[in-house]
Amino acid sequence: MEQKVGIIDLGSNTVRLVIMKITEDGAYTLLDEQKETVRLDASVEAGGLLEGPAVEHAVDTIRLFKRLCDVNGVTRIIGLATAAVRKARNKQRFIELVQQQTGVSFSVISGMQEAEYDYIGVVNSTSIEDGLIVDIGGGSTELVRFEHRRLVHATSMPFGAITLTDSFLGRSKPKPDDVNRLNEFIHSKLREHAWVAFPDATLVGVGGTIRNVAKIHQAKSNYRLPLLHGYAMPFADIKSLWEDMQDTTVSQRKKMRGLSDDRADIFLGGMAALVNVLEFSHIDNVVVSGNGVREGAFYKEVLGWRGGDRDVLDTSIENILKIYNVNVRHAQYVARLSIKLFDQLATLHGCGNDFKKILYAAARLHDVGTALNYYNHSQHTLYIILNSQIYGFTHRELVLCALIAASHHKDMVKSYARHYEGILYKDDAEKAQRMSAILRLAESMDRSESGVVKDVICSISDDYVKLETVVNGDGVLELADADNHRSYFKKIYDKDIHIAKL
Amino acid sequence: MEQKVGIIDLGSNTVRLVIMKITEDGAYTLLDEQKETVRLDASVEAGGLLEGPAVEHAVDTIRLFKRLCDVNGVTRIIGLATAAVRKARNKQRFIELVQQQTGVSFSVISGMQEAEYDYIGVVNSTSIEDGLIVDIGGGSTELVRFEHRRLVHATSMPFGAITLTDSFLGRSKPKPDDVNRLNEFIHSKLREHAWVAFPDATLVGVGGTIRNVAKIHQAKSNYRLPLLHGYAMPFADIKSLWEDMQDTTVSQRKKMRGLSDDRADIFLGGMAALVNVLEFSHIDNVVVSGNGVREGAFYKEVLGWRGGDRDVLDTSIENILKIYNVNVRHAQYVARLSIKLFDQLATLHGCGNDFKKILYAAARLHDVGTALNYYNHSQHTLYIILNSQIYGFTHRELVLCALIAASHHKDMVKSYARHYEGILYKDDAEKAQRMSAILRLAESMDRSESGVVKDVICSISDDYVKLETVVNGDGVLELADADNHRSYFKKIYDKDIHIAKL
Repeated sequence: MEQKVGIIDLGSNTVRLVIMKITEDGAYTLLDEQKETVRLDASVEAGGLLEGPAVEHAVDTIRLFKRLCDVNGVTRIIGLATAAVRKARNKQRFIELVQQQTGVSFSVISGMQEAEYDYIGVVNSTSIEDGLIVDIGGGSTELVRFEHRRLVHATSMPFGAITLTDSFLGRSKPKPDDVNRLNEFIHSKLREHAWVAFPDATLVGVGGTIRNVAKIHQAKSNYRLPLLHGYAMPFADIKSLWEDMQDTTVSQRKKMRGLSDDRADIFLGGMAALVNVLEFSHIDNVVVSGNGVREGAFYKEVLGWRGGDRDVLDTSIENILKIYNVNVRHAQYVARLSIKLFDQLATLHGCGNDFKKILYAAARLHDVGTALNYYNHSQHTLYIILNSQIYGFTHRELVLCALIAASHHKDMVKSYARHYEGILYKDDAEKAQRMSAILRLAESMDRSESGVVKDVICSISDDYVKLETVVNGDGVLELADADNHRSYFKKIYDKDIHIAKL
Repeated sequence: MEQKVGIIDLGSNTVRLVIMKITEDGAYTLLDEQKETVRLDASVEAGGLLEGPAVEHAVDTIRLFKRLCDVNGVTRIIGLATAAVRKARNKQRFIELVQQQTGVSFSVISGMQEAEYDYIGVVNSTSIEDGLIVDIGGGSTELVRFEHRRLVHATSMPFGAITLTDSFLGRSKPKPDDVNRLNEFIHSKLREHAWVAFPDATLVGVGGTIRNVAKIHQAKSNYRLPLLHGYAMPFADIKSLWEDMQDTTVSQRKKMRGLSDDRADIFLGGMAALVNVLEFSHIDNVVVSGNGVREGAFYKEVLGWRGGDRDVLDTSIENILKIYNVNVRHAQYVARLSIKLFDQLATLHGCGNDFKKILYAAARLHDVGTALNYYNHSQHTLYIILNSQIYGFTHRELVLCALIAASHHKDMVKSYARHYEGILYKDDAEKAQRMSAILRLAESMDRSESGVVKDVICSISDDYVKLETVVNGDGVLELADADNHRSYFKKIYDKDIHIAKL
């Protein structure tokens, strides 16, 4: 039966709700996400007690979120309270109050649990092998080191964007001395965890600070994908942003493209944490993860997932095929034929295993656009692949997959590749065309969507490629349809094709 | 139970298959469409008998389509044979042969039945009041006159794109004398049907000829919507295209942007029919309908629909809300509040009933993008509205609806209106912004999606608008959220808003 689950994450800076839907066939999808900036931490700092207007605001918000869960048919709510509540002296009383006034039960999770959820959230939505996860919250920062996708170290530091801002920097332009004291403070804490130094790994950033850093970075470069998860930045850029930032006031930051208004005051505290961890870790590559504690809790507590065994890309594509109700058999026939052609035409296309993986995914997804509208479905396939949260690809791979899949009737690579110039490598467009020529042949050979063409054997001559097909039944129209791609194939590979039955 | 229906239309030029899915809740959607150019007519003309390679090609195609129906779980196939079979001396034998070899039963429908299906297809997918439908096939042309959406006259003419080309023009550049003879021939036929003259109506074009005319027209003007259904052209443009066309050879036509290769040879015959009907009718406005015989047959035989009683826009939006599984209650609350605000702020926004209709639709559809991905869902709402075959809007209305709906969080009008400049009127962008400011308020007032704000009473002063709300429960966060739109409202309406409980 279809099931809906709400996850409410009561943090120091914001309260967030996600509502996930899990359909009968196991596909899951995000239905709603809400956030409200509550700054619960402020009231703890004032004496270790949760009280006053921030508490009222939090209760009102949770009540609203509960109502949203109710009207959406949510049958299970997972309430997670993190650092702000963890640190409060009256946390038990507070949790009872919330329960009484809203009907939602919260568990106060430990810093280590928070770190574990981060880990599960990250390794199930990226295919990074070795990483250092840094989740900067309002009142704590979780660090996780994973190697070969296994968690090896985790810790929770008792500082975050709000507490660092308040203890060291103040809300407007900080003084250089204050920044130095802050740097020394963070480094002293990090020195207790030598494993944070992890030079060849990728730093995976979770939380509002890194998301805002990425948005600023994207705005500066006019980035073409409206996608944060998986966005990569070099440390040098973050460092130089940090240097510029130290010279800004809150009101200047509020005007900055990419930075949210309601984060402008505490942004420097968060950036300081990020930059200091980066320096200490000696890591150069930073990647944003949109998934963290909430998603990790969903994967673990609802789907029963754990660590990094899962093939993230494959799981993600299967999920999308289910969500969009794609004819999986046809998709699979086309994917299989595409790979047979890819392997046998290797000397012609010169593409490696990265493209093989992308072609396979593109073949499985080539018809996903029909879910939106059969007419112009290639175009919709492009749009859906770029916008459906496919996990396990880099942004470049995602764009290539979309271009190849969308070109199964007509060449979209030519018209779109330039749009994504900054994301693609130099020869990517031509390689994508070579892949799309293969996909077209495979798609036509399965025009009747019933696996009529069971196998194809290629022999490459100087002028032409002979494609001998093993056909189940007559297959006249399948082969005639494949033959229609003769001129495109010639254009891309500079060879004729001869299609015949074996 | 979910049901899938295949409709195969065996015409003189092409054989076409559509597969429609009807879900349990009555939503219907196009799953697949296939066409194969078979030119069955050619073999009739050669002595009135269907025989030879075109027949074999047709049988192979129907067999492939049958297989596609089978693998897609189609439980009912409606086979319709039109002019080519209708005119053949051996039609009974042919239908039996097809049945034996493919398992698909075809009904040979009369010209009048064909015209009626066209009518049902058109009036259920456009909101045109008075129209002349012209469906130009390969071997026949159906004409239907409807007034106030009721069919008043219909006929089927025994000429089409193929037969006119073959009898008068030949396949390449025609001679002026031949064109004159052809014009005289068509006019002589039309004179038997004085009702075809219908000066103030809209000519609704159905079939490959008009679709190709529209594609050429769109390519010339760099039209920004990839949408043929509902595309409008003035007669003068079609006439001048016709004049240019008479001077082209087949190979020149094959290179023409917008014109399909496999129609280049018979395109002049089709255009001649179109232009002559237009001249005879004295109609200036031409609109393309993507829906004709197949869709009409689907509406009538599967959904049980008839003539023009249905509110096309409303039916279409309901269908889309079902397909995308939208939270209809929330959509309806927001739509109701939007209309309350629209009516009371009439003196401020100065928009008429056309915008009221568009705002209402936009409010119902504002969250449809979440079906694709919750993140950036406003953007996806824009994309889905523009690409989901919403019937009953002109293209301009469709673009406005998409812009308003997509601006329920952030102003998309500014960034996109210029893209659709050629489609929008001069003040449309500003009006759309005024509508989107209303939609934002309404959307925030129903933040909890549970109809907490039941009513709103506006009073307009010189400097501000007071919005007094009738609230069920506390509504603190709903009103606070609405208050966030204060500065946008001020920018658009140059007035503050004061939101309060009544």
